[in-house]
Amino acid sequence: MNGKPLVSIVSAGLSKFGKREGLYARELFAEAVKEAFDRCPRLEPKRDVKAMFVGHMGESYEHQGHMGAAAADWTGLLNIPATRTEAACASSGAALRSGIYAVLSGLADVVLVGGVEKMTHRSTAEVTEYLAMASDYPFEQWHGITFPGLYALMATAHMHKYGTTETQMAQVAVKNHHHGTLNPKAHLQKEITLEKALTSRPVASPLKMFDCSLITDGASCVILTKPELAGKFTDQPVHIVGTGQASDTIGLYERETLTSLQAAKLAARTAYDMAAVKPENVDVAEVHDCFTIAELIAYEDLGLCKAGEGGKLAESGETRLGERLPVNTSGGLKAKGHPVGATGTAQAYEIYLQLTGQAEQRQVKNAQTGLTHNVGGSGATATVHIYRSNQQ
Amino acid sequence: MNGKPLVSIVSAGLSKFGKREGLYARELFAEAVKEAFDRCPRLEPKRDVKAMFVGHMGESYEHQGHMGAAAADWTGLLNIPATRTEAACASSGAALRSGIYAVLSGLADVVLVGGVEKMTHRSTAEVTEYLAMASDYPFEQWHGITFPGLYALMATAHMHKYGTTETQMAQVAVKNHHHGTLNPKAHLQKEITLEKALTSRPVASPLKMFDCSLITDGASCVILTKPELAGKFTDQPVHIVGTGQASDTIGLYERETLTSLQAAKLAARTAYDMAAVKPENVDVAEVHDCFTIAELIAYEDLGLCKAGEGGKLAESGETRLGERLPVNTSGGLKAKGHPVGATGTAQAYEIYLQLTGQAEQRQVKNAQTGLTHNVGGSGATATVHIYRSNQQ
Repeated sequence: MNGKPLVSIVSAGLSKFGKREGLYARELFAEAVKEAFDRCPRLEPKRDVKAMFVGHMGESYEHQGHMGAAAADWTGLLNIPATRTEAACASSGAALRSGIYAVLSGLADVVLVGGVEKMTHRSTAEVTEYLAMASDYPFEQWHGITFPGLYALMATAHMHKYGTTETQMAQVAVKNHHHGTLNPKAHLQKEITLEKALTSRPVASPLKMFDCSLITDGASCVILTKPELAGKFTDQPVHIVGTGQASDTIGLYERETLTSLQAAKLAARTAYDMAAVKPENVDVAEVHDCFTIAELIAYEDLGLCKAGEGGKLAESGETRLGERLPVNTSGGLKAKGHPVGATGTAQAYEIYLQLTGQAEQRQVKNAQTGLTHNVGGSGATATVHIYRSNQQ
Repeated sequence: MNGKPLVSIVSAGLSKFGKREGLYARELFAEAVKEAFDRCPRLEPKRDVKAMFVGHMGESYEHQGHMGAAAADWTGLLNIPATRTEAACASSGAALRSGIYAVLSGLADVVLVGGVEKMTHRSTAEVTEYLAMASDYPFEQWHGITFPGLYALMATAHMHKYGTTETQMAQVAVKNHHHGTLNPKAHLQKEITLEKALTSRPVASPLKMFDCSLITDGASCVILTKPELAGKFTDQPVHIVGTGQASDTIGLYERETLTSLQAAKLAARTAYDMAAVKPENVDVAEVHDCFTIAELIAYEDLGLCKAGEGGKLAESGETRLGERLPVNTSGGLKAKGHPVGATGTAQAYEIYLQLTGQAEQRQVKNAQTGLTHNVGGSGATATVHIYRSNQQ
């Protein structure tokens, strides 16, 4: 592997994230796709797009499965092959991976990949139940544990093993809320203080309300093509130079450790090797901060710091915009929001903006190499992708 | 396109279909995968299999999503990339298609694709509701129509336009039940008479009980590799020479016609062209007989007869084992059963057996070219694949 572009992103779109009343998921998806089409006037959608993959986690929210076909129908892309991918909160990371396979296969030159979830019309109890379906039914759900509880176990183990503190976790929340204020599409656009985060109500101790990501409606997409065709559609492609996906036991109870995600480490290693990129070469990253502890573990699994030093990295401020390695400039799952099926390609959207200099007030200067890290469940699926600007 | 092998099937597995009490979907899936591994002793699963796609339609049956990771976990294939695909009853047809992309991409030399559904522990009302999620929520489900009703509309339109009769539909049931008696893994293994089919209780007029496929538990898989690597794993590969997938409006009400499925016609045309095969070259086919009318429409959409003549083809007996073009030698969805997520690759399993001469008492003599036709919903997704024996 040599860091050559595998595929190129020629456009991307993101719906406004938030509480989007009165819309179906398919309509939100069409909003994201419209932006992607509008950004890319040289693309003629009906003529050019040959396949699509749509990450969508839960049929329960809208009592609606078959989201691939529904999305093709509502975006005017009939009769192309359209498949829903599901890998819990990594559903659209898996869509991106599937789209890369499709472009590289030679069967589909231009592929639209994206994701969507409509969640806020359901009660918190319903959402918590639907999300829990991504954990193990007989050995986890049945006993009543849900995702905040699973991540609380990881946080407790991390605190015990490495001395990680609640303050360090809260610093992730403060940073990502700050970044969210710079993203007009973020669900929440307000600063929070460390004190506010630390004194927010407990959800699953040691995780408090501000350690948890948001229940959000939203959709996202990117359009992929072969690197040699990218110039036909845009003068500013972003190249994907590394892709990794890995799986792990569905149950947290089966793992050798609770303080790192084996799937994320493996996916990262594969992607770095393919890209010929080292962690220190990454200029901007979007990582899966479904809970603040998850961002700390992501730092470690991605090699952005040593095992056990995620808390210190957060505390150092180096992952804040303007510092050495900005992480989650979009606001992350914490402030931008976490419409679960949409998250993977929403991360790719942010990196696309950053590497094409379109991130406006949250632009990372001279960003040339980007990374996305998308996790499903408590880590049974992880995808990592590495991106390079066309300038590099 | 030239009919060259795209990918090769080096093994396949199928669980017993039926009412499989006391098992989770992941365990049924492992049963199918074990057969595939046992059939292919030269394959070393942990070393060789590089990715998997698992068709699974409904997370509601077991309150369990994230089936890709669960399947990787239960089949000993951690930590490979494992993604669930969902396209309603074409979920594993879509898995097969995704696996073909993956092999052709060059990123994964050996890919396991399959599907699974565990349904019989739920009441018929629950199953009917979960299946309905594949139709349009706001414009179909909400008004109370379910799949028997949607296919009844198609049947009525077909009868009105072409003079198709209830007897012709019943002949599909009689044939497929006969084939089921020859398949020890079929859910039902008993002959029925035309009279019994015609006098069975109405489900959604004109469809009666024996016009409907079965609620079944089951799993299936095939193992794909590059044609140039197939010889490493088996002396008897089956080559996939054509793949087609297409989408259509999710709602039946949006279609220009109710008497054919545009997605199936498009998928078939793509697959035939790629394979350089004409309908008259097909020796054996597995088609999506979720209702008897669907098999008649499949004959027409696949070009096995002219539009409107599906009923006459069924009546002629030519699609019975031993005759010109045996269709659904496995028993089809009608008698083998329809564990929805498993159906697409269960069809591929049957064709694999037929083209390797392993179909025992239901063997089609000199079968060299096979076809599978897998439909999602009322036709919003269709996949068609064309297979060739290694002898040809």
